[in-house]
Amino acid sequence: MSIVVQKFGGTSVADVERIKRVAGRVAATVRAGHQVVVVVSAMGHTTDELVDLAAAISSRPDPQTMDVLLATGEQVSIALVALALMELGIRARALLGGEAGIRTDGVHQRARVVAVDPEPLNTWLARGVTPVVAGFQGVAPDGTITTLGRGGSDLTAVALAAAVRADACEIYSDVAGIYTADPRIVPRVRKLAVVSYEEMMELSSLGAQVLQGRAVDYARAHGVTIHARSTFEDGPGTLITEQAKEAGAMERGQVVTGVAYDGQVAKICLIGVPDRPGVASRIFSELGRHNINVDMIVQSVDRNQVTDLCFTVQRADLTRALDLAREVASAVGAAGVSADENVAKVSAVGAGMADHPGVAATMFAALAERKINIQMISTSEIKISCLVDAEHGHEAVRAIHEAFGLGE
Amino acid sequence: MSIVVQKFGGTSVADVERIKRVAGRVAATVRAGHQVVVVVSAMGHTTDELVDLAAAISSRPDPQTMDVLLATGEQVSIALVALALMELGIRARALLGGEAGIRTDGVHQRARVVAVDPEPLNTWLARGVTPVVAGFQGVAPDGTITTLGRGGSDLTAVALAAAVRADACEIYSDVAGIYTADPRIVPRVRKLAVVSYEEMMELSSLGAQVLQGRAVDYARAHGVTIHARSTFEDGPGTLITEQAKEAGAMERGQVVTGVAYDGQVAKICLIGVPDRPGVASRIFSELGRHNINVDMIVQSVDRNQVTDLCFTVQRADLTRALDLAREVASAVGAAGVSADENVAKVSAVGAGMADHPGVAATMFAALAERKINIQMISTSEIKISCLVDAEHGHEAVRAIHEAFGLGE
Repeated sequence: MSIVVQKFGGTSVADVERIKRVAGRVAATVRAGHQVVVVVSAMGHTTDELVDLAAAISSRPDPQTMDVLLATGEQVSIALVALALMELGIRARALLGGEAGIRTDGVHQRARVVAVDPEPLNTWLARGVTPVVAGFQGVAPDGTITTLGRGGSDLTAVALAAAVRADACEIYSDVAGIYTADPRIVPRVRKLAVVSYEEMMELSSLGAQVLQGRAVDYARAHGVTIHARSTFEDGPGTLITEQAKEAGAMERGQVVTGVAYDGQVAKICLIGVPDRPGVASRIFSELGRHNINVDMIVQSVDRNQVTDLCFTVQRADLTRALDLAREVASAVGAAGVSADENVAKVSAVGAGMADHPGVAATMFAALAERKINIQMISTSEIKISCLVDAEHGHEAVRAIHEAFGLGE
Repeated sequence: MSIVVQKFGGTSVADVERIKRVAGRVAATVRAGHQVVVVVSAMGHTTDELVDLAAAISSRPDPQTMDVLLATGEQVSIALVALALMELGIRARALLGGEAGIRTDGVHQRARVVAVDPEPLNTWLARGVTPVVAGFQGVAPDGTITTLGRGGSDLTAVALAAAVRADACEIYSDVAGIYTADPRIVPRVRKLAVVSYEEMMELSSLGAQVLQGRAVDYARAHGVTIHARSTFEDGPGTLITEQAKEAGAMERGQVVTGVAYDGQVAKICLIGVPDRPGVASRIFSELGRHNINVDMIVQSVDRNQVTDLCFTVQRADLTRALDLAREVASAVGAAGVSADENVAKVSAVGAGMADHPGVAATMFAALAERKINIQMISTSEIKISCLVDAEHGHEAVRAIHEAFGLGE
């Protein structure tokens, strides 16, 4: 008898009919002889609605109180899914995150999972009861409810799968798996049978609706294979696991797995920065202290003891980042600061890239052929990213997708 | 510094604007130098909506799972009210029923409060923090969430007031207090300044929207004076307390405090019941075993060794009660069973009634004058009730209200 964790996202439990369908799928798995742990998100847009309610009352809502509020979304879902299972004759038990053994730190609204006690789930499974666990939430050392931040339900599923040594961790959503590119951008995409954890992390822009980054990271650390698949269709989705390459791709000699796109970036440049040690460290430590993530960084070649220092941030952080950049610029005697919101990041991702020279050349040629100017470049072992004008972002994705023959 | 419990019902927290108004009222009380414990219900019709969701999934939803579901309504309210208080500069803390010390038995969906630990509230109050407590819920000995049944938020408020020895327990609703009759039935009603616990219990039909019966019972047992008042108007409401009579009424020599009306009753008669011991006991113990409350009971005078036995039940219980009555009737050899849904109960209530003969006579005369036939009569120390045709129910209330001069 195997243990299967099945996680269903907000769209999968958005209304009574879908909840019944989810229950049907779980019941079928139980009847096939498996022990199932169900993890569910809040129904549809519940969490957004709760956030809106709080925003109408307070501009800076207290995080601990927000967790009391937001945790209700998943609590409603577990009760309804448990009732639907019972209606199908399956013994079920609705469990809050804390009741299911999810222990977190005390950082409300973005708590980190510090431990998972497998005891509660093992006890219910041993009694022949299917636990239905509230995703996205846990309990802090002081006993208060915590939430794991957006997408935290995936993390709940993976953490529980690791704790009970599940044989499978199935993440259901309205997307059937991970594709070679965003189907809204590229017409002829292909669903990937397997991607590695590292590729999945880099492909996050493709998988953001499918699978959350922290969940992938936790899965890698604990060796949990994730199966991302569709709630509404049968058939296999995409496996996210240790083994790097899907067999078909290996035969075809493909080194690029997929093309990622991020249209939510902005570029900031410090112009005419005196070229002395410590300036870069000063700006980036300042940004880090304010929890602003910096992605691409390029420093121009020194001319007359001054350089230009450019970097990208998420567009939502632009205003705050720009303020900090201006402060540092004035403190270090830079000539000025510029910002550009009309940019997009396109990336070719593939675990085999490091062993195959020429990937960058192919990518740059594909962009040059379409006269798309590259503003910034950054590379890692398994990824090459280019910053381009926003208006050419989608075209760039299509060019790269085609250049590496990913559509076949 | 006095401790004040302030409880706000569902209509008082139905939307963001009302929540802000509730917070304003609490904040004013805190700024006036009081320690306030806030108790809130679920927003508007939230509980009904959750019940409907569950009903769409299961015809017999599991009570423990229902409590997981229903408890979310109040959890949303405490978070939003706490946020609104913080926004006004009041330190506040949202607390679940269990976190606030409400311990119940394990009977889900209609749990009984078995103990209240004053420690959590006292600790928060001592720190200068205003606790905002989820009404209607507690925690069972096994640690699971329980709910107290409909109207349980009032009970939460009274139980907490008793536990922290509050100086006042204010129950806010959209009704300004207890009136001499339902204003929808009688045009010229008067708001009562004071009613006794016993009168309040009997006047439940007037106060059902204002105050729940179990809360009054708990208040009587623990000597908590309740102040029922309006969220939306200032000025005093009605005090529910030990002292029986309001000063004004005493001066006027009124023995009747108010007129209650119950339009949700039904009458069942067992016809031609052999007059031997044990028959009545059999039918009523059978009804009790099925949790059906019987209200008025009348047994006719014996004619030829047979009697008629009539009683009233809540209309919602009629079908089940009738089934049981038919079973018993056939078992004891009764001639038949009849049922009548077109009845209503009108009651004159007053703590001074026992000492003032003639109340019944005045009441019967008022009904006779309007040619309203009395089908059944029952009396207690502080109440006289008559069952009349449903179509004459409202007229009967007006007649009695006028006969005792309650409108002045």
